[in-house]
Amino acid sequence: MTTVGVLGATGYTALELIKILLHHPDVEFTRLTSRGDHGTPIGDCHPTLRGRLDLNLVDFDCDDFCQHVDVAFSCLPHAAASPIVRQLLENGLKVVDFSADYRLNDIQTYDQWYQSPHAQPERVGETAYGLPELFRADIKGADLVANPGCFPTSSILPLAPLVKNDLIDTDEIVIDAKTGISGAGKKPKPHLHFPEINDAVSAYAIGTHRHAPEIDQILTRFCGSNTEVVFTPHLIPMTQGILSTIYVKPREGTMQSAAKSLCDCLAEFYKDSPFVRITDSTPSTANVVNSNFCDISVHTNRGRIVITSAIDNLIKGASGAAVQNFNLMLGHEETTALL
Amino acid sequence: MTTVGVLGATGYTALELIKILLHHPDVEFTRLTSRGDHGTPIGDCHPTLRGRLDLNLVDFDCDDFCQHVDVAFSCLPHAAASPIVRQLLENGLKVVDFSADYRLNDIQTYDQWYQSPHAQPERVGETAYGLPELFRADIKGADLVANPGCFPTSSILPLAPLVKNDLIDTDEIVIDAKTGISGAGKKPKPHLHFPEINDAVSAYAIGTHRHAPEIDQILTRFCGSNTEVVFTPHLIPMTQGILSTIYVKPREGTMQSAAKSLCDCLAEFYKDSPFVRITDSTPSTANVVNSNFCDISVHTNRGRIVITSAIDNLIKGASGAAVQNFNLMLGHEETTALL
Amino acid sequence: MTTVGVLGATGYTALELIKILLHHPDVEFTRLTSRGDHGTPIGDCHPTLRGRLDLNLVDFDCDDFCQHVDVAFSCLPHAAASPIVRQLLENGLKVVDFSADYRLNDIQTYDQWYQSPHAQPERVGETAYGLPELFRADIKGADLVANPGCFPTSSILPLAPLVKNDLIDTDEIVIDAKTGISGAGKKPKPHLHFPEINDAVSAYAIGTHRHAPEIDQILTRFCGSNTEVVFTPHLIPMTQGILSTIYVKPREGTMQSAAKSLCDCLAEFYKDSPFVRITDSTPSTANVVNSNFCDISVHTNRGRIVITSAIDNLIKGASGAAVQNFNLMLGHEETTALL
Amino acid sequence: MTTVGVLGATGYTALELIKILLHHPDVEFTRLTSRGDHGTPIGDCHPTLRGRLDLNLVDFDCDDFCQHVDVAFSCLPHAAASPIVRQLLENGLKVVDFSADYRLNDIQTYDQWYQSPHAQPERVGETAYGLPELFRADIKGADLVANPGCFPTSSILPLAPLVKNDLIDTDEIVIDAKTGISGAGKKPKPHLHFPEINDAVSAYAIGTHRHAPEIDQILTRFCGSNTEVVFTPHLIPMTQGILSTIYVKPREGTMQSAAKSLCDCLAEFYKDSPFVRITDSTPSTANVVNSNFCDISVHTNRGRIVITSAIDNLIKGASGAAVQNFNLMLGHEETTALL
Repeated sequence: MTTVGVLGATGYTALELIKILLHHPDVEFTRLTSRGDHGTPIGDCHPTLRGRLDLNLVDFDCDDFCQHVDVAFSCLPHAAASPIVRQLLENGLKVVDFSADYRLNDIQTYDQWYQSPHAQPERVGETAYGLPELFRADIKGADLVANPGCFPTSSILPLAPLVKNDLIDTDEIVIDAKTGISGAGKKPKPHLHFPEINDAVSAYAIGTHRHAPEIDQILTRFCGSNTEVVFTPHLIPMTQGILSTIYVKPREGTMQSAAKSLCDCLAEFYKDSPFVRITDSTPSTANVVNSNFCDISVHTNRGRIVITSAIDNLIKGASGAAVQNFNLMLGHEETTALL
Repeated sequence: MTTVGVLGATGYTALELIKILLHHPDVEFTRLTSRGDHGTPIGDCHPTLRGRLDLNLVDFDCDDFCQHVDVAFSCLPHAAASPIVRQLLENGLKVVDFSADYRLNDIQTYDQWYQSPHAQPERVGETAYGLPELFRADIKGADLVANPGCFPTSSILPLAPLVKNDLIDTDEIVIDAKTGISGAGKKPKPHLHFPEINDAVSAYAIGTHRHAPEIDQILTRFCGSNTEVVFTPHLIPMTQGILSTIYVKPREGTMQSAAKSLCDCLAEFYKDSPFVRITDSTPSTANVVNSNFCDISVHTNRGRIVITSAIDNLIKGASGAAVQNFNLMLGHEETTALL
Repeated sequence: MTTVGVLGATGYTALELIKILLHHPDVEFTRLTSRGDHGTPIGDCHPTLRGRLDLNLVDFDCDDFCQHVDVAFSCLPHAAASPIVRQLLENGLKVVDFSADYRLNDIQTYDQWYQSPHAQPERVGETAYGLPELFRADIKGADLVANPGCFPTSSILPLAPLVKNDLIDTDEIVIDAKTGISGAGKKPKPHLHFPEINDAVSAYAIGTHRHAPEIDQILTRFCGSNTEVVFTPHLIPMTQGILSTIYVKPREGTMQSAAKSLCDCLAEFYKDSPFVRITDSTPSTANVVNSNFCDISVHTNRGRIVITSAIDNLIKGASGAAVQNFNLMLGHEETTALL
Repeated sequence: MTTVGVLGATGYTALELIKILLHHPDVEFTRLTSRGDHGTPIGDCHPTLRGRLDLNLVDFDCDDFCQHVDVAFSCLPHAAASPIVRQLLENGLKVVDFSADYRLNDIQTYDQWYQSPHAQPERVGETAYGLPELFRADIKGADLVANPGCFPTSSILPLAPLVKNDLIDTDEIVIDAKTGISGAGKKPKPHLHFPEINDAVSAYAIGTHRHAPEIDQILTRFCGSNTEVVFTPHLIPMTQGILSTIYVKPREGTMQSAAKSLCDCLAEFYKDSPFVRITDSTPSTANVVNSNFCDISVHTNRGRIVITSAIDNLIKGASGAAVQNFNLMLGHEETTALL
């Protein structure tokens, strides 16, 4: 039995993580932390867990935590994560980190986009990026996995095989992403107040979203040349789910033949990845919500190939991927607790 | 007092039209038609109209209709519209037609995209296109106005001034549109059944939507050279509203300076158009729903300028524009009943 | 032209009020107040008003306000309202107050339920209650009208005629009310954060909601004997609208005959009230949203008569009623700007 | 390994059933039937199942079905179910039936409310009613279990212990129920078209819903005297979930003490039932959706005790209960695949 601790257990990703791991035959929860909620039953914080997990939240105490935990899932936000993750690693724990602190290739890019101090800059660029479909080998031997951002997962899965095989023009990638509101976290904000966002759609953070450099850097690794995507996220009046509509230009061939090549490339690349489904019909987030699947389809549209990909932002875009990483790190079947 | 008839009065656009015209000081409804609903009070069909409009639906009878109606609004679908509109015009009525029958430049394109017989092919390409902000003069003298499609309105308003002034590359226009479900009409369909579409987002009709050639043709008129846009619509779990996210490449300048040029161009172009608002903040459909406004903003995003535009698909995208056209045709203030 | 000022102009009811009064031929806005927003254009606060009303928010300054305003609409919350309303009245303004400060019959009940100081206790119980369908005469001559609560409006309209005519047992009234989230105001709260409340329903404030004594007191006036209703509100994942499902026991007759009597009583009572519609079909909030109507139907259900009533909480439940009151106070047609 | 067949596998309850049973260690799906869909992969019908269950739909063929199936789940509608269930029983299968065909106490009541022929009237009133918390012993030995209706589950669970212990007046039970739209099934209907029902609430089937006699008969069994509840269902703009707000009069004591007695009674009654949670806070459907839990709370409200209960209509109200019944029938742990 692996003892598991969750840091920052009060948010949406932590809740989904706990719900998934409750089905995992090898997991025992021993510590759930939340600053300021010491002693609160987890079921008071997440009422859906009442009767399913009988554990109280605690303040993080490094000695106590490391004594009782084999593997830590950190659901702390960026900048808050690295000082604690560092201690956990030094104490020999394995860690899956949900924050952006260890995702990027270099500390300069981190500084530029996050403008926060980092407690372990030497591990930036030296950490397994937790997209199992792309970095399975790295993840298997890792003590620390940087769990990807939700938008990057939905964008990189369809794009990485294509840029790796040089099938599309890497200067011409446009990603129009639509996310459910849970992606913005649990803290209430004026623009996410129900009457403000219900029955409405808008773009946000145009040209400034921190997931853009994350997508860039992973795609750059796959194509070898510097890649900058145009990425625009939108808020959709739904709770969970991301749909990314991706506009690309094929390197060669007619649109019809290129679409077939792209589709074949994806099908081949993911033929042993149980959570990626290449579909004929257009993906809807409805088909992936509450699951660890990513659905991808390829279409011609005049001068572009349009790829749409759908995931659950909290599952494949966060906690499901984290469990997939956990399974790989611990030597379990990759799909355990996820199918 | 102008006597007004509505053809196909049971749908969503007809309802919004009636609600708007109930505030119009010069309008008296005399005929509301619907095949098979003869004798039904309009309030039984649209319960929100009970106590506001006391009129029964009738089957269309050309003689009777033309005797009692000065101006007809046809909310009939394409192919059903032209045979009737033709008769109305021959009887001297003025007509605002909501269908696609008279929107395109030529009958060949109509045949190709709509594959339906057309009762008045000689008027295709010879009809005022009802985007008042662009074709005010044509509309003022017209006996027939082709009311634009909802997606074209949300796309052409931000793009036409830019292509007219040659500010953007017309080969590189990508339009990612998000619409509320009312745009699909009132008839229930499996994929629009509430549990199927609630809390979900998906693309549809990728590369095949009939509004693409409509956008092409109007933009082509403004830039002089043949233009083909990449257009992808999406279904959003909300009732009303369209947000179009438009990716363009400026002809010259840095992104920063180009964005300013585009924004200035739009502000100048629409300075006398009361229903177009160029905004600093990112438009939300929430701010335009139940109004005749179109909100537009311009942003830089790496290698692209991103323009977002928001309208109510049923108002500025249909019935509000129709009333705006009616006002121009009849010599009223353009904003009557609309502000 | 009547000059109008709105106190607390940043909330949802103020927005709906402004939108309605923009259609009023006799109204000119001169002052919009909001503490701490001095100088902000109203269109920055409510983007939907951009291009429709060009006025800046100001801090409340009594002298300035009273000099420029004939009629004030106070959208301030309870306890904040009475100190200011008192000053306005002393300066000769007419006031429609949206708060609970002047709604109740006596200061004791106010103290018990609101536990706040009141600046003008002598006017409690001496103020016209702004349900025009019931208190038209009082409102016509009033300098101050207490605009009703949203739940009371949806409950009292169907019940008052029945208790007045002694048709139902006043000890056995159960009101199960369902409200859209805008009823909770504009301030974001954890339980109204979109992901928390979307796709969910729950009861709240069971046995403790402050609208219960308001309903009691008005019904008591109509039946002469002390009445206490059982009232339970619920939060529904929609923006606007209230549906009240009301369970009553008829005094006499079979259920079938009693239902007919109740229905006839309501039809007769409201025959000259243009905003109350007695319907055969079951009311949906969809049919009244964005309107000043109240739809009411009567049904048998075994040992009870079930009455359902639907209003828009922000219109007939707040701002529409306020304009109706304004019209009566100023001698306008009751329906001006409201149909 | 138990071989399982699902009859009528294309609907919402079948989908939830399959998703749950995919986690069941003892279940192998062998037959999924749907009239007219022979040969269609289940993943084409329910895209969320792609990659999780590789089985084609077949037409029902009794010989083939009975040869390959140990336990059948019938998701067929009433009247369609009994002719097939009868055959399955005759062939020695165990059956969980989702329809109303075997739920009632007597064929007369079935005839009166369902007005349909019944293929096995002798089993009506002689079948285990599948509410495990109440009829565990009956279910354990049963060859056929009548899975309860969703509204009955949400109403009977809180009420049965109270009427059994004679704590409430059985002539005065009022149930105001709110359901998500999935309860109406997968077939599109005009009033369930997204734009019609989104952002709206209404009552329906007042006094005529077929779940009322089902509730009556089960409560009657528990209290011994004839019970007729007042039951009013409402449609809520959400996909899954039922909240029932139940108004009762205690037999004795003050409201305060009675509420405590009722709450204690429920806590005691369900102390060994893992899926019933008696809560202090007011239940929200959000806390039970996608789970097999029923949350119940008890409150005073003037002259009534108000009980609210929340379930997922498709899980505890249908497919979760079915699996719970299956577990009991087959001798598994009651919670297998459900926690």
